[in-house]
Amino acid sequence: MATTDPKQINGLDTLAFKKTIGEIKKNPELAQCKFRVRNQWVTCDDNRSEAQGFYAAGAERKHEHDFKFRAGEPALLAGKDEGANPVEFLLSALSGCMTTTIAYYAALNGEKIEKMESTYEGELNLQGLLGLAENVRPGYQKIQVNFKINSSAPAEHFEKYYHFSPVYDVVSKSVPVDVKIETY
Amino acid sequence: MATTDPKQINGLDTLAFKKTIGEIKKNPELAQCKFRVRNQWVTCDDNRSEAQGFYAAGAERKHEHDFKFRAGEPALLAGKDEGANPVEFLLSALSGCMTTTIAYYAALNGEKIEKMESTYEGELNLQGLLGLAENVRPGYQKIQVNFKINSSAPAEHFEKYYHFSPVYDVVSKSVPVDVKIETY
Repeated sequence: MATTDPKQINGLDTLAFKKTIGEIKKNPELAQCKFRVRNQWVTCDDNRSEAQGFYAAGAERKHEHDFKFRAGEPALLAGKDEGANPVEFLLSALSGCMTTTIAYYAALNGEKIEKMESTYEGELNLQGLLGLAENVRPGYQKIQVNFKINSSAPAEHFEKYYHFSPVYDVVSKSVPVDVKIETY
Repeated sequence: MATTDPKQINGLDTLAFKKTIGEIKKNPELAQCKFRVRNQWVTCDDNRSEAQGFYAAGAERKHEHDFKFRAGEPALLAGKDEGANPVEFLLSALSGCMTTTIAYYAALNGEKIEKMESTYEGELNLQGLLGLAENVRPGYQKIQVNFKINSSAPAEHFEKYYHFSPVYDVVSKSVPVDVKIETY
């Protein structure tokens, strides 16, 4: 057996993270976060978004890197296909969040994960986006998610964990979005 | 005045796109799309997602590039901060989709946009994600979006257009997400 740090499970330093959780329990205002993105339109389907700063644990923070994303559309949707479609970004967000949430919860419960893969498929009818049919919504009509997890823990545990995923919560339950538009 | 292609508005070839819309009207089954992402967990907060193929206009398609994304968490959330947080990916998805939808709808209505910038801020309380308070949801509690658009068109037009954004529709109204987990 290789020597491994016994408090590291699924790469997570569980002792340190449990300490963080304990601090939030004592001081719940530390739980308030604000995450932000800025977007700049370039042309047609091409626009760029960036995540730099965020608010967490009572103070403004900066990421180690500026995370930059380029959105696009395939040629069939009049784009140059130089960036993922925003609805693919949504699936990517969902995938990252469900995966991380499962890995952290398993680690906190002492369950080791050897491998975890997942696929996401969303069905969308362009009649909604294009305003061609009132009874067709613009967004996905449903999303199918399939996980394959190599772990000694049973699937029922993971079924519980993913419900704590913030993106799963938002996508499956909705969130109020307030939009202000200023023209000049 | 520089010579510009009169059918190009906001970078969109509006004549070609109106032809696409006409084809969908005649043949509504062309409107069915499936978008997909695959995710591979690496360790702790680190996981990678990828968008390659999709279904559109009656056939399987491939993007010009494989679009790859790395998810992460900041150090405060026990991560290495080598990728954007999945909840930032969600804001990025929302930003790309609202921006593209506005640019396309404006173009189809003959409205030129000179510049378009927007910011997205989501409030999140970690007590929900960590299961510390039953009355606190894991996901964003609200999202504030602010657009600044340089255009001769009035803000009211843009207020109508963004409601056709698929990601805005999903995030503000929810979507059924079916999750299957297989362990081995």
